[in-house]
Amino acid sequence: MAPASSPLPISSESDEKYANVKWEELGFALTPTDYMYVAKCKEGESFSQGKIVPYGDISISPCSPILNYGQGLFEGLKAYRTEDDRIRIFRPDQNALRMLTGAERLCMTPPSLDQFVEAVKQTVLANKKWVPPPGKGTLYIRPLLIGSGASLGVAPAPETTFLVYASPVGGYHKVSSGLNLKVDHKHHRAHSGGTGGVKSCTNYSPVVKLLLEAKSSGFSDILFLDAATGRNIEELSACNIFIVKGNIVSTPPTSGTILPGVTRKSISELARDIGYQVQERDVSVDELLEAEEVFGTGTAVVVTAVETVTFHDKKVKYRTGEAALSTKLRSMLTNIQMGIVEDKKGWMVEIDRCQG
Amino acid sequence: MAPASSPLPISSESDEKYANVKWEELGFALTPTDYMYVAKCKEGESFSQGKIVPYGDISISPCSPILNYGQGLFEGLKAYRTEDDRIRIFRPDQNALRMLTGAERLCMTPPSLDQFVEAVKQTVLANKKWVPPPGKGTLYIRPLLIGSGASLGVAPAPETTFLVYASPVGGYHKVSSGLNLKVDHKHHRAHSGGTGGVKSCTNYSPVVKLLLEAKSSGFSDILFLDAATGRNIEELSACNIFIVKGNIVSTPPTSGTILPGVTRKSISELARDIGYQVQERDVSVDELLEAEEVFGTGTAVVVTAVETVTFHDKKVKYRTGEAALSTKLRSMLTNIQMGIVEDKKGWMVEIDRCQG
Ligand SMILES: Cc1ncc(COP(=O)(O)O)c(C=O)c1O
Ligand SMILES: Cc1ncc(COP(=O)(O)O)c(C=O)c1O
Repeated sequence: MAPASSPLPISSESDEKYANVKWEELGFALTPTDYMYVAKCKEGESFSQGKIVPYGDISISPCSPILNYGQGLFEGLKAYRTEDDRIRIFRPDQNALRMLTGAERLCMTPPSLDQFVEAVKQTVLANKKWVPPPGKGTLYIRPLLIGSGASLGVAPAPETTFLVYASPVGGYHKVSSGLNLKVDHKHHRAHSGGTGGVKSCTNYSPVVKLLLEAKSSGFSDILFLDAATGRNIEELSACNIFIVKGNIVSTPPTSGTILPGVTRKSISELARDIGYQVQERDVSVDELLEAEEVFGTGTAVVVTAVETVTFHDKKVKYRTGEAALSTKLRSMLTNIQMGIVEDKKGWMVEIDRCQG
Repeated sequence: MAPASSPLPISSESDEKYANVKWEELGFALTPTDYMYVAKCKEGESFSQGKIVPYGDISISPCSPILNYGQGLFEGLKAYRTEDDRIRIFRPDQNALRMLTGAERLCMTPPSLDQFVEAVKQTVLANKKWVPPPGKGTLYIRPLLIGSGASLGVAPAPETTFLVYASPVGGYHKVSSGLNLKVDHKHHRAHSGGTGGVKSCTNYSPVVKLLLEAKSSGFSDILFLDAATGRNIEELSACNIFIVKGNIVSTPPTSGTILPGVTRKSISELARDIGYQVQERDVSVDELLEAEEVFGTGTAVVVTAVETVTFHDKKVKYRTGEAALSTKLRSMLTNIQMGIVEDKKGWMVEIDRCQG
């Protein structure tokens, strides 16, 4: 693979900003870093080598499909700093593949799998100092694929931009013991034939209002049901869901309306490794209410226990804490991610130190 | 109302561009004009006076909700040049109101009704020469409301941008006798509790793929069915639908999944004026297939007859041409818009000539 372009010099402002970061207090909010990766491609062509440029506003046509018609995809993955100061990324190939699927759905030109991974690596490398110290957070990486050319009608974009930026982050939810979810029986996140199965920007702004309403009633997030029957659980606003009963761990199937989470896939594998039976199948609300344990998985939330679920007037409490399977799975996953246990699965991709 | 800001000088390039426009050949494509209107507003504040600036790329944060989460609304309306050289806009207050509803749904700060109308007027005035000669097209005006601040999480935007640009356009569809529609019984455009009832950017990119597929099979557009039952017709990708049988004109109700079109509302009124009974109610596919006439309405398509509808293997042909009600309604509407008949409804808003 080509070595990263040598980053352009940046101002001493960045050093000051860096010196003032309180790693302990990072939530899931933007702390701008120094560089981003940008590549562009015209309709009918494919992406060639992009470049690392200083992080900052981009210039875009008012008539672009991303601004007018929501033609955009995003990804989210993380880089981790190990105790011995190596920097590693978790399964970037999976995010690359998901962007390919999304691009197909939205009629966009995606970067190749290698270009995606290389761009993520270059972005991390250029912002190396922003990967928090071990145990104090992670560097969240946000690849975007957006329709950036000018097109008045609803049509594929004349130009596509692939951009990668990053921000150090801490925890996604400010929770102690677990999430308090509200089952939404009125609104759906996705519908069959829609874009629920890909990471399209169009899946997110429609849930903001529902999320704010749920939060103002004291809930941490919403649990959506399927639009077709209204009987089965799908996922939360930004993570997948699992239920546990006895030796069986169940999670809704990825049949087009839920996002195929990379964490979901990894946690399923880890649960199987320790002897659980993992079932990908329709999970009804009734079953959810009778589960022993419920948890969410996602890059941002990692593995987070659900403490309560409220459905209409019914509120159910689940096992959380040390005895919970989710606690065990979370440790198994983060131990691999942070290099505390050996990665026997080939999930971690190291950023080559000599490139720095 | 405040007079328009005096436009900044622009280059002679524009004059050349203008001299070369072939009004007769305009389709629904972008012909960039000289100026656009831009206003910004921080979270928790409201929009103040924006300004007219040269048309061109805008600068935006890579971490903005419009680029990451599809937090954006658009509008579409037209300015017309009359034979006696007045320039008038069609019902801009209706688009302003629709943007207000949309902003509420997407948790955005909208411009006030007056600010919206004033911004549209200023944009038209600044681009006055781009309003095509009578009968040769119209100036399409595209207001955008986009989440432009930087926010990593899914949340309301820290800053919102209200932007208005314009482009002269001709016909939307390259059709002679009427549209050939395909009823999509697999994919839906909207679902209950979603954003189908507002002009959210998120409703559009998901249909591009379906539209391209339909077009490659020779269809002009897709007719979507409701997601709840799959039995009732909703609308096309960018216009509303009406069916005619005897003296009754029927169109699906605006109950959240279809866009409440300004043209739809106006055409309903005109049809009533000439003695038709207009019903806003669920219209089943069965009824559609038995209709005498079918037509679409929208700012871009105006009133366009549907020549055929294909549902599974069944293809039905409808009345079009001189004998069709849609032809009559189209003339009634465009006669008002172009100033051929007097506007007794107060629909046309004149751009003050002395502001020019
Ligand atoms: C809707 C939704 N579901 C699930 C996930 C989890 O996916 P992943 O584990 O790949 O982060 C995400 C993204 O983080 C998401 O946005
Ligand atoms: C989905 C959709 N339906 C209907 C319409 C028609 O609305 P209007 O008549 O206000 O242009 C539009 C916009 O043009 C639209 O995008």
